[in-house]
Amino acid sequence: MSSLKVYGKPYSANVTRVLTTLAEKNVDDYKLVPIDLLTGANKTPEYLKLQPFGQIPAFQDGDFTLYESRAIARYISDKYEGQGTALFGKTEREKALVNQWLEVESQNYNPSARKIVFECVFAQILEGRPTNEAVVKEQLEKLGKILDVYEAQLTHHKYLAGDFFSLADLAHIPVTNNLINVAKKGELFSSRKHLNAWWEDISSRPSWQKVLQIIQAGQQQK
Amino acid sequence: MSSLKVYGKPYSANVTRVLTTLAEKNVDDYKLVPIDLLTGANKTPEYLKLQPFGQIPAFQDGDFTLYESRAIARYISDKYEGQGTALFGKTEREKALVNQWLEVESQNYNPSARKIVFECVFAQILEGRPTNEAVVKEQLEKLGKILDVYEAQLTHHKYLAGDFFSLADLAHIPVTNNLINVAKKGELFSSRKHLNAWWEDISSRPSWQKVLQIIQAGQQQK
Repeated sequence: MSSLKVYGKPYSANVTRVLTTLAEKNVDDYKLVPIDLLTGANKTPEYLKLQPFGQIPAFQDGDFTLYESRAIARYISDKYEGQGTALFGKTEREKALVNQWLEVESQNYNPSARKIVFECVFAQILEGRPTNEAVVKEQLEKLGKILDVYEAQLTHHKYLAGDFFSLADLAHIPVTNNLINVAKKGELFSSRKHLNAWWEDISSRPSWQKVLQIIQAGQQQK
Repeated sequence: MSSLKVYGKPYSANVTRVLTTLAEKNVDDYKLVPIDLLTGANKTPEYLKLQPFGQIPAFQDGDFTLYESRAIARYISDKYEGQGTALFGKTEREKALVNQWLEVESQNYNPSARKIVFECVFAQILEGRPTNEAVVKEQLEKLGKILDVYEAQLTHHKYLAGDFFSLADLAHIPVTNNLINVAKKGELFSSRKHLNAWWEDISSRPSWQKVLQIIQAGQQQK
């Protein structure tokens, strides 16, 4: 029996960021424990012992508990360093650039992308209100400027941190999938040639295709 | 002559996060290149080649350029692994917990703390408008709940990731200094016993005392 457990539901981009990392490292032997935000399972005393902020995912490796998706992804990358994709490149400088683009993702890209997805998809489901179009417009403009920098970078390099796929690229996949395929904002990408080629490349990787099946299986269970 | 350069001004918490990391690693031989947001020096074509988003800080080690303060701090920690404070602990699990609390800082703590500081201090200077008290109230409540989790953690451990000072603690210092000493929201800390002891401890470290002198020297140059 596996000692690895991921707590959360695959509708969360933060959960699928971890699952995609496991897939890139060829780690199949883990259990996905369904903690559903919609039922309040994330606020039980039992779960709060694992994740005191009541967020998903949480992660366990035997008796060791960890949370925050990007920290879990780093732990998996380190623990399975010798197998699957080398997610931090090969040199100290490559590693530093992976860290730089991971921060760009979490500080610049994700806040805007997440707000757009929330307004277009979850505002109705979770808050029973229509999309605030002013917020969407403001964030689309902000994200467009960020993606202009991505386009310039991807004109010179195949991936964000250089000519190698890394955790920095991977970290973008879940929310970008929501942005393009659920919130239907694909024009942000299709209007930028190299950015679009990058998305076609990273989203067709076997790791993400495997996670898409987990997401779809989760939707059918509802 | 030093090959290390930090671009930015020490009024920025993101800049002093890097300077504090250098101080913890006993690296004194670097040049602080004054890029001032208030004069638009961050938007010149020359600076945008170093930092395409026009943010501070940027960092150079010889011909290698890096940005995003937390990525720069990681690079410095790795490059000077053998000297100064071990900022990621000693074991794989300690390192993972440092990464976890670095994410808590950047995803949970910093967004609320930064909004409070902006409203109380910078809204008038940068946007010529009074403090939006509703935003301050909302973020104080949010941050209070986050700090309750910190208080629980610091009841059991001297520092966030365990019983050792790490980059996770360090990363909190600059914005917390602004929150307590500039925005005058010290009650968030003084009302929580272990959190307050933690702040007294980490803010009295020689590294931060040295950076405080750099901040004060910067203010006198204005």
